[in-house]
Amino acid sequence: MQIAVIGAGGFLGRKLVGKLAREGRLGTQPLARLVLSDLSRPPAPPARFPIECRACDVAALPEEAIPQGTDVVFHLAAIVSAAAEADFDLGMRVNLGGTERVIAACRRLSHPPRVVFTSSVASFSGGQNAVLGDDARQIPANSYGAQKAASELILQDASRRGFLDAVNLRLPTVIVRPGRPNRAASSFVSAIIREPLLGLSAELPVSEDFAVWVASPRRVIDWLAHAAALDSRPMGVDRGINPPGLSVSVREMLAALESVKPGAASLVRRVEDPEVAGIIASWPAAFVPERASRLGFAAHEPLGELLRAFIEEDLPATRAERGPEPVRPS
Amino acid sequence: MQIAVIGAGGFLGRKLVGKLAREGRLGTQPLARLVLSDLSRPPAPPARFPIECRACDVAALPEEAIPQGTDVVFHLAAIVSAAAEADFDLGMRVNLGGTERVIAACRRLSHPPRVVFTSSVASFSGGQNAVLGDDARQIPANSYGAQKAASELILQDASRRGFLDAVNLRLPTVIVRPGRPNRAASSFVSAIIREPLLGLSAELPVSEDFAVWVASPRRVIDWLAHAAALDSRPMGVDRGINPPGLSVSVREMLAALESVKPGAASLVRRVEDPEVAGIIASWPAAFVPERASRLGFAAHEPLGELLRAFIEEDLPATRAERGPEPVRPS
Repeated sequence: MQIAVIGAGGFLGRKLVGKLAREGRLGTQPLARLVLSDLSRPPAPPARFPIECRACDVAALPEEAIPQGTDVVFHLAAIVSAAAEADFDLGMRVNLGGTERVIAACRRLSHPPRVVFTSSVASFSGGQNAVLGDDARQIPANSYGAQKAASELILQDASRRGFLDAVNLRLPTVIVRPGRPNRAASSFVSAIIREPLLGLSAELPVSEDFAVWVASPRRVIDWLAHAAALDSRPMGVDRGINPPGLSVSVREMLAALESVKPGAASLVRRVEDPEVAGIIASWPAAFVPERASRLGFAAHEPLGELLRAFIEEDLPATRAERGPEPVRPS
Repeated sequence: MQIAVIGAGGFLGRKLVGKLAREGRLGTQPLARLVLSDLSRPPAPPARFPIECRACDVAALPEEAIPQGTDVVFHLAAIVSAAAEADFDLGMRVNLGGTERVIAACRRLSHPPRVVFTSSVASFSGGQNAVLGDDARQIPANSYGAQKAASELILQDASRRGFLDAVNLRLPTVIVRPGRPNRAASSFVSAIIREPLLGLSAELPVSEDFAVWVASPRRVIDWLAHAAALDSRPMGVDRGINPPGLSVSVREMLAALESVKPGAASLVRRVEDPEVAGIIASWPAAFVPERASRLGFAAHEPLGELLRAFIEEDLPATRAERGPEPVRPS
């Protein structure tokens, strides 16, 4: 089996590539070749099969990024939410235009590949009181979400036409992201856990009652692999999946943080940020993901397990990258 | 008030321009200038204000098609359903790419114009048993509908950002179209009325039980004018309107035809057309258009009135264009 990962250098891309390299298979199929691309040349982990890495812009995707014989494309490349809000043209070019380039590259192949596309909870609105069913309309209230929803439509149509075979996964907010805060409007949701675990303060732009639809990187990577291997025929024309995330409040997150590191929650300070609040206020806080469960997407682990996995798998590297924990005044 | 009409040479474009030229105002505002464009230079009716006409491709829309000072843009240009199904690239370039060009042209203006966009019932699915509410998801099962739905998303986002102020009207199948059959999959719905009124036979690719969500050109032009003049603020982020069409079966259409021209229905012959049937089978047959009614879109006139209006307003020109009625064997 031959796999292409577009956006392989990002957080999820690296986790996904790590899993593929480690396991050497996808579903029941052994891997023969992995082709990675990102704006900067992505790293290749050790593996028992060839991994090629290339630097390219998804908005001008070269054919070699999805070579002949590709069975599965993971299309993860995107301009994240606050960045797409700050620069409309860049978001359109990468998020919608990039998807058009992926479709064009797939059409050249002799056999239509499975395309796993990471859409987003940001393509919905409804806000804090929403509990969305599988038939909920996507009424995005941010450019990132609009570009993701439009991309879903054209990938779905390309699937119906037999150019490719897409599964559009509307990912929840992924926590806990390692590294530094990024330009996603949801960046604070990871920061209020990660930064205090590093002994650093974090800013909270919403109230403690604010609820977020989240998923762990581990669960997301499992979903991506499942989306790549599932039988898409029962999906029919509708290629959208709302996977089974967790609906958690900031208060629950801070309580979970306290339980793994007492005192850490006191490092979180409430600071107004109208720009961020304006984007995320419309995101729905909960879904009833029946279709995803029916199609075999695994249920989410509890919040405590999510935190412990972050501490074991990602915190050491983040700590090494960010430097020593500061001495706190007692 | 200054108005630009993109796709002004088509059937609806000419009807709309005729109304604007005749009335000399839109809502309560007098018209000062009308700028028309289409792939071929569109005709200009006589008017008491200047009308400029230009030939241009919406996929490469020149800035002059939407000049500085434009208050309202009617964006009607499209590759119709069967044609977009036959040529994916052409549909993408015109239907989605053209909308991107319209947005780019509007962004240059000092004042964001109202953009009235003709989306389509083809952006929905559900088929014969569907009765869709205002919250129905758009799950298009044809490329035309997918490109229209994706265009709606980016126009809606451009509205939220203040680049323009869009109203996306999901038009029913418009009947009765004059002229000749075209490449819309719904072309037969007009043909089974128009052709027998000309003494010609027509092919019916579906059963007489088949129901269609339709609207008259007169009603559509009224809706377009209403969409151009309404206060969009109560719409919020959601710029989509399902206007109040009519749900009618082929049997009801043939009965109405018989009542205006006895014997005419016998000219309609059942002929299988899997390509057309494949596209239109998924289109929903009925809506509950509460939002449109709340926003002041006029209810539809009865089917008999629709037929009589066609006979008065469009049949003479169609007859002149198509030649004399053939002598039928008695």
